[in-house]
Amino acid sequence: MLAVFGHLNPDTDAITAALVYARLLARQGVDAQAFRLGELNFETAFVLREAGVDAPALLPALEAGAAVALVDHNESAQSVPNLVELNVTRVVDHHKLGDLSTAQPPYLRFEPVGCTGTILLRLHREAGLSVEALDARLMLSAILSDTLHFRSPTTTREDRDAVAFLAPVAGVEDVEAYALAMFAAKSDLGNTPAETLLRMDYKVFPFGDVVAPQQWGIGVIETTNPAYVFGRQAELLAAMADVKAADGLAGVLLSVVDILNETNRTLVLGAAEAQVLSGAFGVSVDGPVADLGARISRKKQIVPVLEGFFAPQA
Amino acid sequence: MLAVFGHLNPDTDAITAALVYARLLARQGVDAQAFRLGELNFETAFVLREAGVDAPALLPALEAGAAVALVDHNESAQSVPNLVELNVTRVVDHHKLGDLSTAQPPYLRFEPVGCTGTILLRLHREAGLSVEALDARLMLSAILSDTLHFRSPTTTREDRDAVAFLAPVAGVEDVEAYALAMFAAKSDLGNTPAETLLRMDYKVFPFGDVVAPQQWGIGVIETTNPAYVFGRQAELLAAMADVKAADGLAGVLLSVVDILNETNRTLVLGAAEAQVLSGAFGVSVDGPVADLGARISRKKQIVPVLEGFFAPQA
Repeated sequence: MLAVFGHLNPDTDAITAALVYARLLARQGVDAQAFRLGELNFETAFVLREAGVDAPALLPALEAGAAVALVDHNESAQSVPNLVELNVTRVVDHHKLGDLSTAQPPYLRFEPVGCTGTILLRLHREAGLSVEALDARLMLSAILSDTLHFRSPTTTREDRDAVAFLAPVAGVEDVEAYALAMFAAKSDLGNTPAETLLRMDYKVFPFGDVVAPQQWGIGVIETTNPAYVFGRQAELLAAMADVKAADGLAGVLLSVVDILNETNRTLVLGAAEAQVLSGAFGVSVDGPVADLGARISRKKQIVPVLEGFFAPQA
Repeated sequence: MLAVFGHLNPDTDAITAALVYARLLARQGVDAQAFRLGELNFETAFVLREAGVDAPALLPALEAGAAVALVDHNESAQSVPNLVELNVTRVVDHHKLGDLSTAQPPYLRFEPVGCTGTILLRLHREAGLSVEALDARLMLSAILSDTLHFRSPTTTREDRDAVAFLAPVAGVEDVEAYALAMFAAKSDLGNTPAETLLRMDYKVFPFGDVVAPQQWGIGVIETTNPAYVFGRQAELLAAMADVKAADGLAGVLLSVVDILNETNRTLVLGAAEAQVLSGAFGVSVDGPVADLGARISRKKQIVPVLEGFFAPQA
């Protein structure tokens, strides 16, 4: 059995890509099953509820040598702890290639598009398989989520074309209304603990020296209701301090992205973070919130800038 | 301009894949140009002469940050010396994934098939582009070369299907006769210096400990005329000793593959090589030639066995 799963702290793309790719592989005769590496966020729970599909099971511990397919990620820091022992036979992803290596020639499908769902649609077409309504809804939801319905600079023509194709197959007549409902679900954070909010869409990146990099944790909260998040600013800063100490990080950033106004205000934990934010982005940092303007994509507008800032000088 | 190139010590797949992929990208509006990383072997020279196409130019030194597309390889040890400084935007390959990483999301297309040419044919189809006669001949030649016209255990159904499709487009009526002519050209080694013979299809592999691996050089001479090669055995062993010392290697192997009889007799340089060959493959090594039987694929039957033999014990 081939276990198919997306990254830790799964988002809508990570969950739906696992479901859709496992279903596609099954139609092609591969004994594949979707799993998840963590709890669903509120947006993903909404998407699966609307689609009438159960969440994939939590991935059980896998023995060394077990065959796995990765979707929506490839770096070991974002995957199962024992990834290096597993037999990665397939990857479908739209991120930069990190530290993955394989023992045998794999099937790899990476494209620089906004969402794994966009690549999965291509795989259906190339296989000559019709797109079923459920798969269409899952891929559509993932693309709307990853691109913030085309607001993110990660959006490509392929993502727009995929949504135009998928919406009628999925039976979604008003795409913007559906996207806003997804974003509202995501923003309904209720009494979620502050550390859970921080870790909901959170990744650790190594910066600087390749052999001895410094590790930075970067969380993003995409919301239509930033006022709610900033109302919990003190709690979130305390959670960031706890995570930084517990995980031995050089710094922790938490970007609050206002989906509808396309702005990013980032919580500033301390002097190290303030220095990096002002040095890397050229913004003035005065107090616990830095205005990063329209930089709403961690992948395209935050991490590359930090990589350049921390790069060893030749 | 995107520079497209295959591995060091290029073989027919490395050269033709660069030519075909650059032409395909150009038809898709990408400013791409094919290059090579070394001299043509006799088979490849024959293929290009028969196809009426010039060899790609030697790759000039590339500045840091230059955009490149890799074909038929992905490991830094088999590529340009400064690969880590370059911007790898595309890879089309059928080998295991090694130490490659990228700064941005790349376009990656890996499939576990016998030849890069087989994947390139799929890319034509997926792009909805007709296959031109020249490209068909180049892809056909590469598949026949890499699979030894289906004799190699690396051969897949996709490779066979690709040959069946490509041969008529290329205007090759008798595929076996064309393959034998390629192999005869490859075997016409004339007065090639021994070190050139050793290095013609030669790769260095790290084995054992990940942090401090031992490096083994493994050459293959695929020939329809093994008697000629063994007639130069003393010269070849001397060249192997020179290369081992000059490159600081733990060992050097040179497999002489009899294409038509599908056998592998491997030159044994010294005690270290004898011990590894007998330990890893369970063959008795007595004298300067070890009989490795029908193990004619370095990728599938030699390197994985050595990786297992050298793997650190848990």
